[in-house]
Amino acid sequence: MSTDPVNAFVPGPRARIPGKPGLPLSGLTFAAKDLFDVAGIPTGGGNHDWARANPVPERHAWAVQRLLDAGAELVGKTITDEVSLGILGESAFDGTPLNSAAPERVPGGSSSGSAAAVAAGLCDTALGTDTGGSMRVPASFCGLYGIRPTHGRLDLAGLMPQAPSSDTAGWFARDAATFARVGKVMLGEEPGRLPTKLLIAVDAFGFADPEVAAALQPMVERLARIVGSPPREEIMAPQGLSVWARAQRSLQPAEAWQTFKPWIEQHNPRMAFSVAAGLIAGSQIPASERNWAALMREEARARLRYLLPAGTILCLPTTPFPAPLRGLSLPELQPLRDRITCLCAQGGLAGHPQVSLPGATVDGAPVGLSIIGARDSDASLIAVAKAMENAA
Amino acid sequence: MSTDPVNAFVPGPRARIPGKPGLPLSGLTFAAKDLFDVAGIPTGGGNHDWARANPVPERHAWAVQRLLDAGAELVGKTITDEVSLGILGESAFDGTPLNSAAPERVPGGSSSGSAAAVAAGLCDTALGTDTGGSMRVPASFCGLYGIRPTHGRLDLAGLMPQAPSSDTAGWFARDAATFARVGKVMLGEEPGRLPTKLLIAVDAFGFADPEVAAALQPMVERLARIVGSPPREEIMAPQGLSVWARAQRSLQPAEAWQTFKPWIEQHNPRMAFSVAAGLIAGSQIPASERNWAALMREEARARLRYLLPAGTILCLPTTPFPAPLRGLSLPELQPLRDRITCLCAQGGLAGHPQVSLPGATVDGAPVGLSIIGARDSDASLIAVAKAMENAA
Repeated sequence: MSTDPVNAFVPGPRARIPGKPGLPLSGLTFAAKDLFDVAGIPTGGGNHDWARANPVPERHAWAVQRLLDAGAELVGKTITDEVSLGILGESAFDGTPLNSAAPERVPGGSSSGSAAAVAAGLCDTALGTDTGGSMRVPASFCGLYGIRPTHGRLDLAGLMPQAPSSDTAGWFARDAATFARVGKVMLGEEPGRLPTKLLIAVDAFGFADPEVAAALQPMVERLARIVGSPPREEIMAPQGLSVWARAQRSLQPAEAWQTFKPWIEQHNPRMAFSVAAGLIAGSQIPASERNWAALMREEARARLRYLLPAGTILCLPTTPFPAPLRGLSLPELQPLRDRITCLCAQGGLAGHPQVSLPGATVDGAPVGLSIIGARDSDASLIAVAKAMENAA
Repeated sequence: MSTDPVNAFVPGPRARIPGKPGLPLSGLTFAAKDLFDVAGIPTGGGNHDWARANPVPERHAWAVQRLLDAGAELVGKTITDEVSLGILGESAFDGTPLNSAAPERVPGGSSSGSAAAVAAGLCDTALGTDTGGSMRVPASFCGLYGIRPTHGRLDLAGLMPQAPSSDTAGWFARDAATFARVGKVMLGEEPGRLPTKLLIAVDAFGFADPEVAAALQPMVERLARIVGSPPREEIMAPQGLSVWARAQRSLQPAEAWQTFKPWIEQHNPRMAFSVAAGLIAGSQIPASERNWAALMREEARARLRYLLPAGTILCLPTTPFPAPLRGLSLPELQPLRDRITCLCAQGGLAGHPQVSLPGATVDGAPVGLSIIGARDSDASLIAVAKAMENAA
């Protein structure tokens, strides 16, 4: 297609690579967030001054190559929040992709275009990234399946980094079958065994809007039936969701500043004010705060390791609310961003795999239920996604 | 002309308004920094997200109207450092105007395009602004006459504000006759009486590069002859040039933040990283620092009032060095910016009129000698400019 009413794809000629027949993903179309290298095409990174300062990639990113090798067809590169810093999907450079599930609302970010493209049916799956919530939030807001894999599980070669100790690459799908089909290729593993124990993160449910907690209740009950044992209520973050969020918001922006500092100092690029503000905040975090945050990260890792032995999953609302309206001002958005971080920080801190499952709405807008498992239980979470869809 | 090898004018169709015959400025061409309103044309302000958020002006800025009413011909609007925040003239949006006097060097800013256009002979004069040095620095770097008038002397209607307690509007010229001809229209006053006493700001000369101080020496001697009495050495800033600079750098960015905050919060505009960083720094200045800076401003005002009764002028290097090379990195530029502020802060703090006179070079690049007079002695400073040129 030559027009893009969804505004999911980056401006300019569409990046296209045909699929191949007779392979696991033959017939499947995919898009790649514009942080993933596609050979011969500048990687834009959501900032119009990035490509000018960086070489055109000569190789595909590992994840792109993986899908192509399995026969999938690349149909485009998608809009991303600038240098993956953004959680709402409103780009000062490329505009806001349409959230087909709730057109007056933001799609979520930073994997905004990938989520929007899948939600609108423009492709079957799409690659995104998740450092602080960039897969999970748009999955929740657009009503999609989306995974943040175990940190370190997938090869991130050819992916523009942000905060490497938290960066991951994932994918979206509209249905669990496609989600699992892509998962088998990306993980190199069949859907795993279903877990046998379910924990309910009462602190996270309590932190979400009451309407969200209520809307997710039927999904929690379905999860309990799939797991086959009575769920147990647990506090996920005994130190406080806001304390985990604080640790993540000290570590991630400081690391992002280190990632982008050489580019910024050499090229003084244009950036949305909010993105510059976030990086400057990252540059100003004192060592004492970062040192504390690193210790709190150890505590968060210990907590999730303790809560989540193999065969146990924890469920929580992916986001505390459905997608906010488009076009809010920065002072209106800041508290919303802060609340989102309180439910997403565990991903960047502890690195456990997390899948956001669609199936609930509030005021007609989607909101996702997340499941978190033990490290490297990614394939089990995909099995849960399939079972949830079958039981719906 | 349809091309712009100097890169002095804002992109797009050139703003042109014909002159009128039989008036004081008939036959004179001028350009206006893109902070001045020209009726019917969006005011860009050097930021590509500004015009979208602001109405197209229905009236000319006072200064534009004043020149048009005197018969001058408008030949274009000129590139400015973004929202007038910048002192070097390198724009992340519109590139760097050519400094015809030193092509490998920056033109200085923020009135970069106006200075470049006059220096290249694309017009006879050009309007600029000066909050923290934005007339004086490009005048020095491009080898032009340039004035920062007495604060409050000229009507700033239709001019995009930055820090109103320091904002002024001025003009450039290549020769003193044109400089004075425009001055008569802008000030509504003939060139004034020549001063009879000359002070030499020894702290400022000592702070400049020794090569700059040496290069300006013949001009100082010429000034002394014009004044007709032996010059007296004085410390301009007994509290320290760096202390005055600190006060200015606490007051001006804090005020600029208040000016631009509503736009930023509503529109999250794209900005060069350095500009966003400056505004954020302005937003973070504690009240205790601002309160101290306001007291120091009073001290600086008292000092210049004491030093500069009517008939006395003070001279100092306009800038501590000639224009830096183009394309330096942010860490290379920051100490240069800081040193420039040490010689420019008195303008924003005390509001006295200051004229930068061309006539010296270091390594082939221009550097200006500044004269400062009593408040409202603008016309006397213009008389000095004419006398200096006649005595050259």
